[in-house]
Amino acid sequence: MSIREEIIAQAREARRAARILANLSTEVKDQALEAIAQSLEVSMAEIMAENRKDLEAGEKAGLSKALLDRLLLNEERIKGMAEGLRELIKLKDPVGDIIEMWRRPNGLQVGKMRVPMGVIAIIYEARPNVTIDAAGLCLKAGNAVILRGGSEAINSNRILARIAAEAIARVGLPAASIQLIQTTDREAVSVLLGLNEYLDLLIPRGGAGLIRRVINEARVPVIETGTGNCHIYVDQGADLEMAREIVFNAKTSRPGVCNAVETLLVHRDIAGEFLPELYQVLKESQVELRGCPGAREIIPEIKEATEEDWQEEYLDYILAIKLVKDFEEAVNHINTYGTKHSEAIITNDYSRSQRFLQEVDAAAVYVNASTRFTDGNQFGLGAEIGISTQKLHARGPMGLNELTSCKFVIYGQGQIRE
Amino acid sequence: MSIREEIIAQAREARRAARILANLSTEVKDQALEAIAQSLEVSMAEIMAENRKDLEAGEKAGLSKALLDRLLLNEERIKGMAEGLRELIKLKDPVGDIIEMWRRPNGLQVGKMRVPMGVIAIIYEARPNVTIDAAGLCLKAGNAVILRGGSEAINSNRILARIAAEAIARVGLPAASIQLIQTTDREAVSVLLGLNEYLDLLIPRGGAGLIRRVINEARVPVIETGTGNCHIYVDQGADLEMAREIVFNAKTSRPGVCNAVETLLVHRDIAGEFLPELYQVLKESQVELRGCPGAREIIPEIKEATEEDWQEEYLDYILAIKLVKDFEEAVNHINTYGTKHSEAIITNDYSRSQRFLQEVDAAAVYVNASTRFTDGNQFGLGAEIGISTQKLHARGPMGLNELTSCKFVIYGQGQIRE
Repeated sequence: MSIREEIIAQAREARRAARILANLSTEVKDQALEAIAQSLEVSMAEIMAENRKDLEAGEKAGLSKALLDRLLLNEERIKGMAEGLRELIKLKDPVGDIIEMWRRPNGLQVGKMRVPMGVIAIIYEARPNVTIDAAGLCLKAGNAVILRGGSEAINSNRILARIAAEAIARVGLPAASIQLIQTTDREAVSVLLGLNEYLDLLIPRGGAGLIRRVINEARVPVIETGTGNCHIYVDQGADLEMAREIVFNAKTSRPGVCNAVETLLVHRDIAGEFLPELYQVLKESQVELRGCPGAREIIPEIKEATEEDWQEEYLDYILAIKLVKDFEEAVNHINTYGTKHSEAIITNDYSRSQRFLQEVDAAAVYVNASTRFTDGNQFGLGAEIGISTQKLHARGPMGLNELTSCKFVIYGQGQIRE
Repeated sequence: MSIREEIIAQAREARRAARILANLSTEVKDQALEAIAQSLEVSMAEIMAENRKDLEAGEKAGLSKALLDRLLLNEERIKGMAEGLRELIKLKDPVGDIIEMWRRPNGLQVGKMRVPMGVIAIIYEARPNVTIDAAGLCLKAGNAVILRGGSEAINSNRILARIAAEAIARVGLPAASIQLIQTTDREAVSVLLGLNEYLDLLIPRGGAGLIRRVINEARVPVIETGTGNCHIYVDQGADLEMAREIVFNAKTSRPGVCNAVETLLVHRDIAGEFLPELYQVLKESQVELRGCPGAREIIPEIKEATEEDWQEEYLDYILAIKLVKDFEEAVNHINTYGTKHSEAIITNDYSRSQRFLQEVDAAAVYVNASTRFTDGNQFGLGAEIGISTQKLHARGPMGLNELTSCKFVIYGQGQIRE
């Protein structure tokens, strides 16, 4: 079989499985999740042996320490995956919820019921735990999933997907509910992107190159997960201690993630008071600052920021700083340079707090809190399949609800249309 | 300027306009809708003169009577467009609604606020009234719109779009909120489909050829509106008079639309009693029947149905009939051949009614009512921009809510992430 034929055969099986999954009770789906969790725990040695192969190949290929660490599966991480599945069991199953229902003048009752998407494909890079996390989330929401992981993790992904498929088969679910693309050939991605006949949704999780390729080639509906060039605006009259703590947290708690702050906007009237102390604490954490001329007048030691700095998602210990003359300039800067991910204002002014929430166009807009909270668990969604930066279907952190669609259910008593 | 440059310039203007529209009050948007309505009413002669050009060109090109009728704008139809806009004024503005909000253990309040999509492109065929209907819907939901109509209606579309843009400019809105692609060159569609940098959503409204082209080429998020191969299943023990009325209504009230029934499934135990009378009433309305062998044993006069008949959306006075041995066979047939549009069961059995709603995978599933109700107005959405047959974002009739996205709004008191 060609790669194309093989993947189409998998997609057909996934579609068949999806029909069955859509009508399973929550109880049965939860049993399947528990079965996977137990299988992971009893297969630790086997998983680590396969993971070893990926690590060795990665070392040979000269992968960075950071990448090798992302690749690593040890007992703790495998237990973590099992725990993640058990957390999913505790979450409410969205399928079958009637989210609204109303009666029409002719007596028809029209309601909207949550239903599974059907077949979801996930294309991801490096971290093999995504194999289990994504499979679990899709399963709980009644979807079949086709997984395409990074080639560096192929041995780990294969064993994880096989364990999951076998575990759910043992409790009576179709094994094809969880399938991994077996080849590492890049052609497989192209094939997946064209399968609009079989796939209801495709979610790419990875770097800008992957996302771009998916957007450009896909015929399948896609949810774009993307970059975060996030801002914090410290307003006139803000609580400056709060502002410092939030900026410090948003920059240094985990600089490599999409909800970390990249540019700080400061009202010029408070910059002289605010920036020097902030500079001290950031310097202690090895954060490099790059400032506009105004900021450099206050802290001459810092580098000059260029136009590129306003655009860049550093994902690193670097922060750009710009003074603004008023609220409007801040909002304008954010709406111009932001990637519509997470944006925050630190203020004590009621009306500007409301205007910020209203006028800034982003997946998550904050008053007086760190941008680092943009995350499914932090928002209380219970789990997260990714953070959408597009506006269609889901925006921001996506949990179980976002892995469902709706259908109209209509209860009649013989109504016909005039 | 090349076509590409021209359209990109329009898209840039649309983006700028969208930023302003997103923050307008409902009152101002409603004033703009009223301004368009009044402009249409005072410009009737001008509109009809431009429409005359399209009609003459259409006659020369040998368009069918039906197509020429779709193209025609007379006083009544222009008044109808104005009335449609005034209906929109009465509808609730979804923008700014907080659809849910909850408090996290750390005190953060996390809510979801409805916001406009941004810039929406609509590609449509033939009927020029879509120019005004779509512009009005997009505007009420705070979106800028780029319209690409069919070449047959170009003169009508140009005058309508110009009137709308000038009318809203008079009440202070950016004229670029409503823009028409001025060229009829097919290249314009290709350019639009690639503008993912500027467009948040593209909705194609038209025949299968257009939809396929859009799905294949688009980099912009698309909502697929599609064909309806709709079924009615008449269950054992159904109220047969109700069943007859519903089938008659679903087939004959408007056979050319997507929510008309195309295949009738009948439980074999009641077919002998049900079909002959149904045959009489359908014959009187010139409906051609095509049946499976079992149906032809009961009504030998009808044609034989082939495999193609189960697949086809006739959009005509034709109905395929198949006897089934049980509920499962009916659901299976629907899930195999249906296009996931509108499906109905006629039954008095409680448990099968519930199972049908659950197990049939379609945008709208009915018990004891005509499939013809699948429509934004009939469902009480107030208006409709199209009927989605995909699962992402919106499924079934789409009203104002479906032209919005959400953002997370977070109220903090200085929270930082551990």
